[in-house]
Amino acid sequence: MNKQKLKVIPLGGLGEIGKNMMLLEYANDIIIIDAGLMFPEEEMLGVDLVIPDISYLLEKPEKVRGIIVTHGHEDHIGALPYILPQLNVPVYATRLTNGLISVKLREKRFKEKAKLKTVRPGSKIILGNFKIEFFSVCHSIPDSVGLIISTPVGTAVHSGDFKLDYTPVDGKVIDLSRLAELGSAGVLLLLADSTYIELPGYTPSEKVVGETLEQIMAQAPGRVIVTTFSTLISRVQQVIDAAVKHQRRVFILGRSLRDTVRIASELDYLKAPPEVLGRLDELPRLPHHRIVLLTTGSQGEPTSALVRIANRDHRQVHIIPGDTVIMSATPVPGNEALVNRTIDNLFRQGARVIYEKLAQVHVHGHGSQEELKLLLTLAKPKFFVPIHGEYRHLSLHAELAKTLGLAEKNVFILEDGDILELGTEAARKIGKIPVSNVYVDGLVIGDLDSIILRDRKTLSRDGIVVVIFTIDKKGGKLMGRPDIVSRGFINTKEGELLLEKGRDLIVAALDHRGKHSIEWGSINTKVKDILTKFFYNETRRRPMILPITVRV
Amino acid sequence: MNKQKLKVIPLGGLGEIGKNMMLLEYANDIIIIDAGLMFPEEEMLGVDLVIPDISYLLEKPEKVRGIIVTHGHEDHIGALPYILPQLNVPVYATRLTNGLISVKLREKRFKEKAKLKTVRPGSKIILGNFKIEFFSVCHSIPDSVGLIISTPVGTAVHSGDFKLDYTPVDGKVIDLSRLAELGSAGVLLLLADSTYIELPGYTPSEKVVGETLEQIMAQAPGRVIVTTFSTLISRVQQVIDAAVKHQRRVFILGRSLRDTVRIASELDYLKAPPEVLGRLDELPRLPHHRIVLLTTGSQGEPTSALVRIANRDHRQVHIIPGDTVIMSATPVPGNEALVNRTIDNLFRQGARVIYEKLAQVHVHGHGSQEELKLLLTLAKPKFFVPIHGEYRHLSLHAELAKTLGLAEKNVFILEDGDILELGTEAARKIGKIPVSNVYVDGLVIGDLDSIILRDRKTLSRDGIVVVIFTIDKKGGKLMGRPDIVSRGFINTKEGELLLEKGRDLIVAALDHRGKHSIEWGSINTKVKDILTKFFYNETRRRPMILPITVRV
Repeated sequence: MNKQKLKVIPLGGLGEIGKNMMLLEYANDIIIIDAGLMFPEEEMLGVDLVIPDISYLLEKPEKVRGIIVTHGHEDHIGALPYILPQLNVPVYATRLTNGLISVKLREKRFKEKAKLKTVRPGSKIILGNFKIEFFSVCHSIPDSVGLIISTPVGTAVHSGDFKLDYTPVDGKVIDLSRLAELGSAGVLLLLADSTYIELPGYTPSEKVVGETLEQIMAQAPGRVIVTTFSTLISRVQQVIDAAVKHQRRVFILGRSLRDTVRIASELDYLKAPPEVLGRLDELPRLPHHRIVLLTTGSQGEPTSALVRIANRDHRQVHIIPGDTVIMSATPVPGNEALVNRTIDNLFRQGARVIYEKLAQVHVHGHGSQEELKLLLTLAKPKFFVPIHGEYRHLSLHAELAKTLGLAEKNVFILEDGDILELGTEAARKIGKIPVSNVYVDGLVIGDLDSIILRDRKTLSRDGIVVVIFTIDKKGGKLMGRPDIVSRGFINTKEGELLLEKGRDLIVAALDHRGKHSIEWGSINTKVKDILTKFFYNETRRRPMILPITVRV
Repeated sequence: MNKQKLKVIPLGGLGEIGKNMMLLEYANDIIIIDAGLMFPEEEMLGVDLVIPDISYLLEKPEKVRGIIVTHGHEDHIGALPYILPQLNVPVYATRLTNGLISVKLREKRFKEKAKLKTVRPGSKIILGNFKIEFFSVCHSIPDSVGLIISTPVGTAVHSGDFKLDYTPVDGKVIDLSRLAELGSAGVLLLLADSTYIELPGYTPSEKVVGETLEQIMAQAPGRVIVTTFSTLISRVQQVIDAAVKHQRRVFILGRSLRDTVRIASELDYLKAPPEVLGRLDELPRLPHHRIVLLTTGSQGEPTSALVRIANRDHRQVHIIPGDTVIMSATPVPGNEALVNRTIDNLFRQGARVIYEKLAQVHVHGHGSQEELKLLLTLAKPKFFVPIHGEYRHLSLHAELAKTLGLAEKNVFILEDGDILELGTEAARKIGKIPVSNVYVDGLVIGDLDSIILRDRKTLSRDGIVVVIFTIDKKGGKLMGRPDIVSRGFINTKEGELLLEKGRDLIVAALDHRGKHSIEWGSINTKVKDILTKFFYNETRRRPMILPITVRV
């Protein structure tokens, strides 16, 4: 028997653990599962994106056999354009997923250099000690897969993002028999999606949404405007199908949706009868009840088509009486306020707006409690690691597994960088690799240290006061009064007086030391102290104080 | 017949319209309903609070007869300490509400000067042309009232924040018969709470929560830690009752909860048998299953007791195995991330956490659709104005009223400052008074203009670059190279190089103009342009560029 062990390490742990990247390591082989981006938390001011920290991989690039991508969502593919230039290993994904990856790579001019390999559900690949089999799962994007990974210590099953849907739009049902077969043969480790562990019962089928859409299109007196996630291709298909059924034509608004529709149509994941999709200039010639507008903006993105329509500043489309707007999406956490504002403004413009709270115009892409129980029961794993969820989700999923009979010692909650080591009989956490948040802020990747973020926070709250001392280079003496300028702090006439008083205080403090040459390092600290205290007493604000010394 | 009309004007329209303040005006009399504060929206950086704009009232203070407060929540009383010093009119409220108002006023040292008048549900007061009768309503704080306002043109009913609860904790059920009686006699105008118009059915009774709390306390193997809104006195009562029933003692953590418990006990709105409430130093002597900790922190407030416990930095209390934490509250919009993080950290510490998604440990304080239908049906108003909701809620509530038979022309959605004029037979919007957001930022009220907020936004995203030119006062010439300093922009070695290059660019641009006296105004613009462009090209960031000229 070999003595090597299997290591499992989640990376990219901002928010949902293991979602953006997972590593499996055995002997001289490492495989990476997914390479997604994360959206910054509120306090990460000015940060565009966060990507997984791959420094562990960059230390031993020769071991990395490839990246396996489970599906084409941003949080699973979005970091590839940043990671591949540093670690150009082969990427294995299904056809649609590769199509979407190609778009991302082309934007960053790395498409030609990347090694994209297309796999099919049911197919297998061998990467060193790992044999990987792909199986179809249902999720809110077509061509999603889960993974069956044979390793020298046993079989690991990775669910990907999944739900059970016996009536999905594309007809591809999850292969439950294959999972049952594996369960009987013996599964060492199950890694399973925990996103909707809080919800009891089953997630409804996409079919329910299709029926709601049809009903609305049948009854709406005028135009129907639908917004959804631009990667939710099955929803786009449902909108087209419902439109066809009710003799409406479909017009696409917004670049990302047009891109998706084009790629999905080219790759045959989207079927629209000829003449259904129209060009915007045909709009004025059609009666309102023959029109469906399919638009970006489901997250209230400020520059999206729907938000511009809601604000009445879209060039071609305004809300007119009789319009029905369907928000066929759920706000991603953090976007609630933007989405609500968009809905409010659409109502203000006179539209009737139908959103998730009012009708079943959206269903989630993840399994609820009963589906998670079914997966655990079919796979019958020896070890269980809940993934794809924040800590509370993983805790609840771990509890669920225990109530289904898994031994407490065989259930592990991993956090970013945790190393779980598995043998055939036992598993344990053996430590943690150092990981940090890698920020993308403009063109710069990774350099944002905590000082910059702390400074931005101070600046955002109470602004800045700049104090400039001019010093005689020869004598080392202060020349004239210091200058004082503020931004984002205070603006009124009293504010001007306040700054002037602050200037007086500094002059007084400096004069006190006489006209001799001065220790300028300690002056900076002193000036900061004096002004911080003074401004806080007068205004209860704490602007950043930035003393600058100019030597002339 | 008189020809005077009744005017209705909502003020304080950030988010929920008419919630924070409503005006009723007739001839020479104005009454104010509620004076609450609003929490700033995300883009209002550094703002502590927003209060209603009372400039309309300050123009005719002699007309204002008083402020009537419906209940003791921050969004109905919180602006009083800021408004009364400018407009010291009598304040009419029930006993508990006045107790809570007193606390606020004492903090701002205005208690002695204020004219607080205590009213009882069922009592009436006369303010000029208005006769106001108070009636009990159920809400998430005791002693809440709605208003029946007799005016020369007819009767107006104001629901306050309300729900129907046939089994409330304090036993005070809404007076449906009085409403029915009014409806039969004829109601001119109904102003009704729209907060939960999106929810079908009825809001469950507080009783349901009581039962859940009891069940958890009976079964929990160790300590039970409960957090709730500090003003949710009925919930505090339920926690105490459940604790008593299961032989547990209750320990209060957090100043705002201790204040509430003290005031509510003094005023007899909270009943705790002697020996139930304990002091923290008694904690170590009690077995775990005899302990309930009632704590602040239901909104994930960073300095609250619960958050410090979750982060393991509370001085006296740590999570220990067997602890059960109950989040008996719902996150206020905007606080979701903080609350989720707190729950995650409590799980991390080993607690079992029970929150709204997992069990009925909280119910809302507002009526759902069926309750709103009942109110409309009983009151049978001629005119209807939905209040207390964002625009979408008001729209949905207006639609609901129409489906119940109200004429479309008699239903009005008002926004901040809109003036609705009502006669006995007709009503119409006649215009809008100018209103703006009045910000409280530290000690300063109202001065935050859009420039300050815009500056803070720029600063928060990409920081600041300060450029200092020293100019010879006599010759008007540049002395030496300009200095350049940044904060929150870039921090690495390459960053230093970048700033240095920026400096070079400026020197080149200035040299180009020769050594002659220079037009410094235009230089500022030029420097901003050059650096903005250069930094954007190099980094895709747009820091604020602040050129400062020092004359020596």
